[in-house]
Amino acid sequence: MKVIWNSEIVDRSEVRIDPEDRGYQFGDGIYEVIRAYNGRFFCLDEHIDRFYSSAGKIEMAVPYSRNEIKALVNRLLEETKIDTGNLYLQMTRGISSPRNHMYPDAGVLPMLTGTMTAGERDAVKQGKGIDTIVTEDIRWLKCDIKMISLLGNIMVKHEAHKKNAEEAILHRDGTVTECSASNIAIVKNGKVMTHPDGNLILPGVTKLVWKKCAEKLNIPVVDRPFTLDEMYEADEVFCSSTTIEVMPVRRIDERILFTDKPGDVTTALQAEYLKEIEQQCGEIVR
Amino acid sequence: MKVIWNSEIVDRSEVRIDPEDRGYQFGDGIYEVIRAYNGRFFCLDEHIDRFYSSAGKIEMAVPYSRNEIKALVNRLLEETKIDTGNLYLQMTRGISSPRNHMYPDAGVLPMLTGTMTAGERDAVKQGKGIDTIVTEDIRWLKCDIKMISLLGNIMVKHEAHKKNAEEAILHRDGTVTECSASNIAIVKNGKVMTHPDGNLILPGVTKLVWKKCAEKLNIPVVDRPFTLDEMYEADEVFCSSTTIEVMPVRRIDERILFTDKPGDVTTALQAEYLKEIEQQCGEIVR
Repeated sequence: MKVIWNSEIVDRSEVRIDPEDRGYQFGDGIYEVIRAYNGRFFCLDEHIDRFYSSAGKIEMAVPYSRNEIKALVNRLLEETKIDTGNLYLQMTRGISSPRNHMYPDAGVLPMLTGTMTAGERDAVKQGKGIDTIVTEDIRWLKCDIKMISLLGNIMVKHEAHKKNAEEAILHRDGTVTECSASNIAIVKNGKVMTHPDGNLILPGVTKLVWKKCAEKLNIPVVDRPFTLDEMYEADEVFCSSTTIEVMPVRRIDERILFTDKPGDVTTALQAEYLKEIEQQCGEIVR
Repeated sequence: MKVIWNSEIVDRSEVRIDPEDRGYQFGDGIYEVIRAYNGRFFCLDEHIDRFYSSAGKIEMAVPYSRNEIKALVNRLLEETKIDTGNLYLQMTRGISSPRNHMYPDAGVLPMLTGTMTAGERDAVKQGKGIDTIVTEDIRWLKCDIKMISLLGNIMVKHEAHKKNAEEAILHRDGTVTECSASNIAIVKNGKVMTHPDGNLILPGVTKLVWKKCAEKLNIPVVDRPFTLDEMYEADEVFCSSTTIEVMPVRRIDERILFTDKPGDVTTALQAEYLKEIEQQCGEIVR
């Protein structure tokens, strides 16, 4: 399998990470997951923009231009011959030896790695929805940075897994922020509500897309924090992320939100989201 | 240079970390820094205990007994021939391939790495103290776990560095928690105050030792949160960690706390701390 290693495409077996890479000792790095359909990346520009934005927020200079990165990931997609799947792209601040909290000198080159993994869309799951739990948002206060210091995220994901759920809905003092690996929105009386961007949530690329879809469909969307109680009383709840797209929530802890099919607003957004994919990546076989 | 790589001591050049090591993609791991003086580790048992405690808190099984780890680190100390310096010991949850938030199956072996770095005690600095800044505690809500997802810590450390300071004093809504890489205490009218252990601070091994010293010296210590204002009005402020031991704070932002020498309580604790070191590791040349 071919992978990205700095400015090259190499065989995965060639990639070796130094034990004093700051990604390994400090979680000092950023990443993106970008979906490809039909051999084409979806929302590539938006993801690359966020990659630069995350890097900027931790004062890490990306030693490649946007076009260089785009060329690199497109070359990886081509060489892996993966049609539909996920690109994982990560950049760490490079090597500090001996280990030192302080950022290294400007001369230290960040370490870029990237892999492609095949993975079809799961249309059946899109109709069934996911089961979730509610738990405290234990993460740090810079959740707008897509960084690799993810222990807080994977711990709550694991908590969900132990309770036979796939996603953890996070709240701070009763206010819902987002999920362990996705944004979340509720629908009440035809109106969609989702937590405003800021330091408490990741500015989702998928959220950007479904908001655009909502606009096309004349579905009102309000950016405002909502409480757990508002969520429990909502007509529909859905999550969104690059990998799960617009995903209905079927269950929250013991509460079943729907048994037959997801709500109308969620379903409409899913269909419109699919159109967006098809516009960029060509027809999706259903 | 020799290093620890799982259950072996190998040459550093042999160690290669997989790009899909969960330490590298999720900051999913724990660590300890252990100080050696005169070729002997200081508070080794306490550090190994905390290593196991951190691992337990993230549900990671350590595949080695306490005695195996102690034998391994002592062998490293011997083979590196380092007399006085720091051991860095880290364990990640091993490899998830392809990348997956979920904890891997029990069969996946954690990855243990460890390095020794030489570094003398800086007695001059112990008398001069360190300069600090105050900034918001942006970290997560499980700061009792000594984990490698440290971006929050290094960002505030960097903020301090940019302002010509060495350490960042962290507060949540005006209540001081600890520093970016050390615990903190204040002295007022001969009494020491420090934030209680719990989810907001690391249970410092060095703090344990200076508390023991305070007891010997009949210096009262109270575990209770204190505010920024209480800190500003304190007679003395000091930080503590494995590498800096008991370190007086000379400056907080623009406030100079002492010009001549550190306060009496801090000085007494430093002297007694040195005795503790000498008891375990033999005479320290001053």
